[in-house]
Amino acid sequence: MSAPLLEQLIEAFRVLPGVGRKTAQRMAYHVLERGRDGGLHLAQVLAEAVERIGHCSQCRDFSETDVCAVCAGTGRDRQQLCVVESPADRLAIETATGYRGLYYVLQGRLSPLDGIGPRELGLDALAARLAGGEVVEMIVATSATVEGEATAHYLAQLARRHGARPSRLAQGLPLGGELEYVDRGTLSHAFGTRGEMPE
Amino acid sequence: MSAPLLEQLIEAFRVLPGVGRKTAQRMAYHVLERGRDGGLHLAQVLAEAVERIGHCSQCRDFSETDVCAVCAGTGRDRQQLCVVESPADRLAIETATGYRGLYYVLQGRLSPLDGIGPRELGLDALAARLAGGEVVEMIVATSATVEGEATAHYLAQLARRHGARPSRLAQGLPLGGELEYVDRGTLSHAFGTRGEMPE
Repeated sequence: MSAPLLEQLIEAFRVLPGVGRKTAQRMAYHVLERGRDGGLHLAQVLAEAVERIGHCSQCRDFSETDVCAVCAGTGRDRQQLCVVESPADRLAIETATGYRGLYYVLQGRLSPLDGIGPRELGLDALAARLAGGEVVEMIVATSATVEGEATAHYLAQLARRHGARPSRLAQGLPLGGELEYVDRGTLSHAFGTRGEMPE
Repeated sequence: MSAPLLEQLIEAFRVLPGVGRKTAQRMAYHVLERGRDGGLHLAQVLAEAVERIGHCSQCRDFSETDVCAVCAGTGRDRQQLCVVESPADRLAIETATGYRGLYYVLQGRLSPLDGIGPRELGLDALAARLAGGEVVEMIVATSATVEGEATAHYLAQLARRHGARPSRLAQGLPLGGELEYVDRGTLSHAFGTRGEMPE
């Protein structure tokens, strides 16, 4: 005999990030008590999304179509290419900044110990694209972690080899951050790379 | 044109309790990046659960069958009836205690201002059950909130009217609680209802 359906539902919710046994239980009860229509809708959209959402053949971001809306768009500057680690990073930049160039989503970062090398990140396709000569500036927007920095270093070399100019997001104090609570590494870096104040 | 499927998925996740825009986005990306099988499974189980899980005709708890496993079970003491507000409360008592009686799930608590009266909580069916004469002790396990206490008061009267003995969960300091951090109401109540220490 299989487990009761309610039990199966609770277990199934645990596939979601940050959802443990207790939260999964709350979600199951909530859907059954007050959100049956929403629950059914979620089930349908989720099944359809898993089925139909693949990757854009140009930027590797999630897309329902072979080429995503951004890559296919005509109003974007094709001389700028921003390389990010994940679709979430791409969305964050798109939402927060006025950037109008194109993106390239690595879907990860270099991590030889985990078997993630240049090929897994689609860097051969990126190299081919750079070789095309259209990209003038490659904005390297990987994380400021050890692996992110290593990836950035690799990407910068790749860009220079193909005549593109690599750039990197500025590092320093976060806006609105109290000096007292900033970590030592950031503070030391920001102090060392201080710039002259404009008049 | 309808919104992109990814956007629809993010919105659909917001039906879950405690899930805002940002968490919904994380869930959608997580499922697409690393949990497609689990996501598809969740979609299927969720659709099936919303479709098939109804309420037990005897205790009003969630059940796939007309009478749930607990009510149909032969090993339970039918003279004890524990009244709880929600299926989650029932599960908490079943997990934490050795209680072997039956349950009655109100699916709410008396709240006249919100239009929740005795009928919405199935108290007519509960009265009919008490009138059957099988129940000896009715354990009132509603919350220790104002509405929970009002519901408890109403339930106790109902029990007495039908010759059943109402009981209520003990109130006082939580186990392992530091006196300093216990709220004033609880502390005052626990102090007032102190009991003699056993030898």
